[in-house]
Amino acid sequence: MLKFLGRRVALIALLGLVLCGSGALLARAVASDPLPSWNDGPTKQSILDFVARVTKEGGPDYVAPKDRLATIDNDGTLWVEQPIYTQFAFAIDEVKAQATKHPEWKTTEPFKSILAGDLKGLAAAGEKGMVEVMAATHSGMTTTDFDKTVKAWLETAKHPRFKVLYTDLIYQPMLELLDYLRANGFKTFIVSGGGVEFMRNFADKTYGIPPEQVIGSSGVTQYQMWDASPVLVKQPKVLFVDDGPGKPEGINHFIGRQPIFAFGNSDGDKEMLEWTAVCQHLCFMGLVHHTDAVREYVYDRNSDVGKLDKALDEATAKGWTVVDMKNDWKTIFPPAKTSP
Amino acid sequence: MLKFLGRRVALIALLGLVLCGSGALLARAVASDPLPSWNDGPTKQSILDFVARVTKEGGPDYVAPKDRLATIDNDGTLWVEQPIYTQFAFAIDEVKAQATKHPEWKTTEPFKSILAGDLKGLAAAGEKGMVEVMAATHSGMTTTDFDKTVKAWLETAKHPRFKVLYTDLIYQPMLELLDYLRANGFKTFIVSGGGVEFMRNFADKTYGIPPEQVIGSSGVTQYQMWDASPVLVKQPKVLFVDDGPGKPEGINHFIGRQPIFAFGNSDGDKEMLEWTAVCQHLCFMGLVHHTDAVREYVYDRNSDVGKLDKALDEATAKGWTVVDMKNDWKTIFPPAKTSP
Repeated sequence: MLKFLGRRVALIALLGLVLCGSGALLARAVASDPLPSWNDGPTKQSILDFVARVTKEGGPDYVAPKDRLATIDNDGTLWVEQPIYTQFAFAIDEVKAQATKHPEWKTTEPFKSILAGDLKGLAAAGEKGMVEVMAATHSGMTTTDFDKTVKAWLETAKHPRFKVLYTDLIYQPMLELLDYLRANGFKTFIVSGGGVEFMRNFADKTYGIPPEQVIGSSGVTQYQMWDASPVLVKQPKVLFVDDGPGKPEGINHFIGRQPIFAFGNSDGDKEMLEWTAVCQHLCFMGLVHHTDAVREYVYDRNSDVGKLDKALDEATAKGWTVVDMKNDWKTIFPPAKTSP
Repeated sequence: MLKFLGRRVALIALLGLVLCGSGALLARAVASDPLPSWNDGPTKQSILDFVARVTKEGGPDYVAPKDRLATIDNDGTLWVEQPIYTQFAFAIDEVKAQATKHPEWKTTEPFKSILAGDLKGLAAAGEKGMVEVMAATHSGMTTTDFDKTVKAWLETAKHPRFKVLYTDLIYQPMLELLDYLRANGFKTFIVSGGGVEFMRNFADKTYGIPPEQVIGSSGVTQYQMWDASPVLVKQPKVLFVDDGPGKPEGINHFIGRQPIFAFGNSDGDKEMLEWTAVCQHLCFMGLVHHTDAVREYVYDRNSDVGKLDKALDEATAKGWTVVDMKNDWKTIFPPAKTSP
């Protein structure tokens, strides 16, 4: 985390020096903008205003640092979720990698379709098929072995369109937002429908969010002794689904109090935003709306992945902040890593 | 938390001034001892040595601050658990308080026994009876209403022997240990078999541990709309039991990584200590052994509450630190609050 921040600070400092040659005034403006990848306008201003109000000591909306909790979705809010959730891409690759150990998969759906590269056949297996794939690839091993597999995959697997690592497909404006919140005393949490043990393998390095501040869907683990040494073995059984109403339930389960700031991008975030909206302080609710087909993707009401329909209506009706990705974000991904 | 620390610092400063009159040398010795309520000896020294080694930059056992996690049991480790767990005393009082709303309890066990003050009858109902009492008093209300009830009870209910609030029956040496760990960069967590929502109502004020660092047994909650406003309603269904093997499972579920320091007092902590013992750094495992009948209680292998048998054998065999309460602790409770 320190290393990560250090790198970013060094980059900003370097940028400042370069700009200094062409105009000292501009350099100062860049250095003082905590959200440089956000275009000026009402969206950016709503964030700046909120943070200014809750941090103004003696002001009517002041919130003590210990109560400044921010809960932020992951898939589609912090990183790309199209064309399929990254964790599902991992599961598909794992089926292929483990196929020789499971000869029965050649004749059993949905594994047969995956091995034949038939994504339509996989889709036909529906949610039940997906659950089977997740169970087969996310259980039966120790948590330590699972972590190693996930880390190795994240270091090599490439996104089918952008041809870069998945962890390069994080949103630069949201990284700046996370830094800005933390610089203003916020404790930042991920609250995602994704698997908690999958996310904990990259959230610290990628977002500066330690494992204990990552909340997500969870499987059952079982404490066992292997060769007289204790291990936790992942079981093919769901403990907790952290999506939709499961998000406020998960926030209560893991955090035990309400956030004052929440950001999502889909109907799966609706209840988390509603729950945040009744916080005991000034509250901020935000949505990322994917409106940029050239630099990222365009999708909302009719998407299979990250469907944004009811939450968009509620955000509009209640005046929550909605990011128009195309117009509000100057850049999408961290510099010098991706080209669309 | 700041207020809490402030009070303690003020007390220590005052103590320093008083002692200063009788001997400046002694005052300096007191001021420099981070664990003044611990008698000098191998137990105290094992803690001081461990912290010195993991915080010594450049040393062979150095652990970066971000990896300094401490997980500490609550009942019997941070506060009194005899003659019955405090949360169960709360549940019994709640049955009495809610009895007029439940006329059927007059004729239904185990409620009938509780209302008649017949603790033997309650004991005869066994674990099933206890589960019924817990379900009846810990579900059906919103999390907000439950919190209000717990807080009100903690402000008035008195311990049957010590005649003081339960939150006054916390162990002064363990408070000093928590402060000492945090002053050395540790993140302190409670990991208890007790109910997480019960503990989160006093852990911050009492121990300086915020709700999101309190891990415990958990019930299911359900997100609902009451009068068009979102609430979380506590359900009579167990989500997670954080005891025995459930402790390392819970640490993985909530924290996602291993502690390097763990403290408990019963067989329910055995697996947590075993799991800590295989951490990737220098690891510390400790147990509180209740050996002081005069100032607190004496119990271990044959106790119904906080049974310490197998974990004591394992601690002895493996050289874990075992606190002999009578001889290792100079004081038991915070000053000027209790007399036995």
